[in-house]
Amino acid sequence: MPQLVLIRHGQSSWNLENRFTGWWDVDVTEQGAAEAKAAGELMAAKGLDFDLTFTSLQLRAIKTLNLALEAMGRLWLPTEKSWRLNERHYGGLTGLDKAETAAKHGEDQVKIWRRSFDIPPPAQEAGSEFDLSNDIRYRGIAIPNTESLKDTIARVLPYWDDRIAPALKAGNRVLISAHGNSLRALVKHLSHISDEEITGLEIPTGQPIVYELDDALNATDRYYLRDR
Amino acid sequence: MPQLVLIRHGQSSWNLENRFTGWWDVDVTEQGAAEAKAAGELMAAKGLDFDLTFTSLQLRAIKTLNLALEAMGRLWLPTEKSWRLNERHYGGLTGLDKAETAAKHGEDQVKIWRRSFDIPPPAQEAGSEFDLSNDIRYRGIAIPNTESLKDTIARVLPYWDDRIAPALKAGNRVLISAHGNSLRALVKHLSHISDEEITGLEIPTGQPIVYELDDALNATDRYYLRDR
Repeated sequence: MPQLVLIRHGQSSWNLENRFTGWWDVDVTEQGAAEAKAAGELMAAKGLDFDLTFTSLQLRAIKTLNLALEAMGRLWLPTEKSWRLNERHYGGLTGLDKAETAAKHGEDQVKIWRRSFDIPPPAQEAGSEFDLSNDIRYRGIAIPNTESLKDTIARVLPYWDDRIAPALKAGNRVLISAHGNSLRALVKHLSHISDEEITGLEIPTGQPIVYELDDALNATDRYYLRDR
Repeated sequence: MPQLVLIRHGQSSWNLENRFTGWWDVDVTEQGAAEAKAAGELMAAKGLDFDLTFTSLQLRAIKTLNLALEAMGRLWLPTEKSWRLNERHYGGLTGLDKAETAAKHGEDQVKIWRRSFDIPPPAQEAGSEFDLSNDIRYRGIAIPNTESLKDTIARVLPYWDDRIAPALKAGNRVLISAHGNSLRALVKHLSHISDEEITGLEIPTGQPIVYELDDALNATDRYYLRDR
């Protein structure tokens, strides 16, 4: 049976400060690094193992993967990195903390953006502090200037179809280290969660989520590894 | 012009203890980690950049690569890992320190093994403490039980021909993080060093070696980055 484990990166410095991060490339905190290491130790203790790993182009997800793999004695596993597993792009909200966002846009509007499936935040202005258009890691990619969760899902799923699903069908045990919203995209797809429900599904940092799948990659079970 | 940089992993715990390491998977020391980070900072300060990276299946080379890349803000670069870039396999000498080796085999014999191009150390005994035949990272590979430098070169060069040289010819800037003897293989090939001379060529840990190459991948210059 194909085996898939998802892990959201450990706590980042902007998780801690409650800032909209999105594609901005912040590091994990010490606690985030410890969460990643503990996730690897838990996976090893529970006898999980992998053949292939996937992650985003963002430091916090790559480091979480590397720290977990090192704790498992598996840093030598192959890793494929793709912008398609990046966090949702928060547009003009990037860099703002809770108070700043509420002051600028009003509490009610912020709730709409946070909870809406298909309404993106305002676009990021070109040349703004957090503009990534000159970041060479995204050469050749049409970098979004904002994304709804729906937009995020629309660019994650082609990567699932093209790279991850074939690897699982070929018998590889797969670990994916990514972000709250890119993982929501996968969970929505695999667990058939509605547009309304998925926006409220919280994915905790550093907790391995195990999917048991049948040969057609239909989910037969999904659970937090810590609970088994 | 194709650009290639080689880096030997930072100091490992067994470098420090002067033990034959080979394929045994020891970690870098704190100093080794600091060397790796400093190498990344030096490469960034000198304006070097990369498109593709290669390393072995061994922790000390992978961590050196990751620490250097993180210091450059380039942890998102693609990395291909191969056993063909592993350190020379030291056979029955694996795990022995200088004094133990001399006591067991005599100083003169040790010098022969260290300086010979094509005489391998005694084979590692199956089931010995450092036997890797059950290490799943080498599934499907005929794990050597000892290697001369000549043997090491014979399994490194096909990887150069198949994976690294084509990447360079396609215009990719390449960084390779590997080991004393797998890097000797590449330096011998690129700089046309004789069998006699290559065994005496020391490659320091954590020092980026820059190759300037022409379009046919002939070396036009080779230097330590710290000297420029």
